[in-house]
Amino acid sequence: MSSLKELQQRVADFIDARNWRQFHDDPKSVLLTLGSEVGELMELYRFTTTKEARARAKDRKEDVEDEVADILYVLLMFCEENGIDLEEAFLHKEQKREAKYPVAKFKNVNAKYNDI
Amino acid sequence: MSSLKELQQRVADFIDARNWRQFHDDPKSVLLTLGSEVGELMELYRFTTTKEARARAKDRKEDVEDEVADILYVLLMFCEENGIDLEEAFLHKEQKREAKYPVAKFKNVNAKYNDI
Amino acid sequence: MSSLKELQQRVADFIDARNWRQFHDDPKSVLLTLGSEVGELMELYRFTTTKEARARAKDRKEDVEDEVADILYVLLMFCEENGIDLEEAFLHKEQKREAKYPVAKFKNVNAKYNDI
Amino acid sequence: MSSLKELQQRVADFIDARNWRQFHDDPKSVLLTLGSEVGELMELYRFTTTKEARARAKDRKEDVEDEVADILYVLLMFCEENGIDLEEAFLHKEQKREAKYPVAKFKNVNAKYNDI
Repeated sequence: MSSLKELQQRVADFIDARNWRQFHDDPKSVLLTLGSEVGELMELYRFTTTKEARARAKDRKEDVEDEVADILYVLLMFCEENGIDLEEAFLHKEQKREAKYPVAKFKNVNAKYNDI
Repeated sequence: MSSLKELQQRVADFIDARNWRQFHDDPKSVLLTLGSEVGELMELYRFTTTKEARARAKDRKEDVEDEVADILYVLLMFCEENGIDLEEAFLHKEQKREAKYPVAKFKNVNAKYNDI
Repeated sequence: MSSLKELQQRVADFIDARNWRQFHDDPKSVLLTLGSEVGELMELYRFTTTKEARARAKDRKEDVEDEVADILYVLLMFCEENGIDLEEAFLHKEQKREAKYPVAKFKNVNAKYNDI
Repeated sequence: MSSLKELQQRVADFIDARNWRQFHDDPKSVLLTLGSEVGELMELYRFTTTKEARARAKDRKEDVEDEVADILYVLLMFCEENGIDLEEAFLHKEQKREAKYPVAKFKNVNAKYNDI
């Protein structure tokens, strides 16, 4: 099993081996790449019914898995190039999420924390 | 350090403690949530110059970190609810990426693998 | 009734009256704004069932209408600042779409033109 | 010149000629299609410098124009299928935008209306 920190390091190594940071130096570019990868995942769910959508990760398993992997890759690239440790950011936000959505109040409740 | 598998499990536990799977049962809904979280990260970079964009992860550090964390959270939620192990998907795609972008051919080259 | 060309001109006038082109000179910035506006529309459909989603444009009518309007505004801004006449582009693509999706072949068929 | 209302009607006619409303009955599906089309436009600006981004609408003119056209097409489809008149929504929001961003206050100012 790999820690998220290790995965982030591997993305860094992949980029550095190709000397690609020179092409990623505008964070806006990396965000557009993120948007295009998310678009590719969405593309697989175009005009699907709920039933078809539920089956998609099985009937097009490799495509769906490749797209979620690409999204994580670009997200890690963005973090790496902007001095963010994604694992730390995730754990920090997780604490906030726990505080915003206490189980006692949100069990079986579909709402944003600031709507109720 | 946490493995990505552990983080995925924690997202699963967070959702299950609140009995929220009933609200996530259409993968399209989760993808729209992913799109809205990516939009929130992009919002922080609206109408920025390249210089301003490079500084954003410092001058609005907590906001940027919260947004990347939210994107990972929704991506893990999507994987969890669709039977995908994000870590395995990532490692599998990493091998494909290495094969598509050999260092010898792509060092200092900014192009898609199928464009050259 | 307003032509799309007129709407595009009004977006141009709105921007010029505020001397805002100086802030939009990187098309990537405008695209991130487009992404964030699309995210705001998606946000209104988070975790909705199909039934709830169908009702959304009525039960949150003003919010949904404001978001589609904002998307068109940013799309027209992008076109204006990149020398594109959106109306002409639309009409040109419409002809291609007619050619790709002939009625005889695609009536009652849910598929991309290159999948069948 | 075509009014936006006419363009919306033509999208409606295109869909009805193919009897496609049956496949679009979940607004979430149409929004995912919108997200994927926006992703395709973003894809054309991946890893571009500001200078390259400014040239893109010329050096890949047809691709960029096709993508903005597709975004408008899906946006009109979404409006058509959700009982929204995009032209009216646009004109209504335009009035709000004028009120939020008075020229006297926002000339040469790059900020959101609620930030200053």
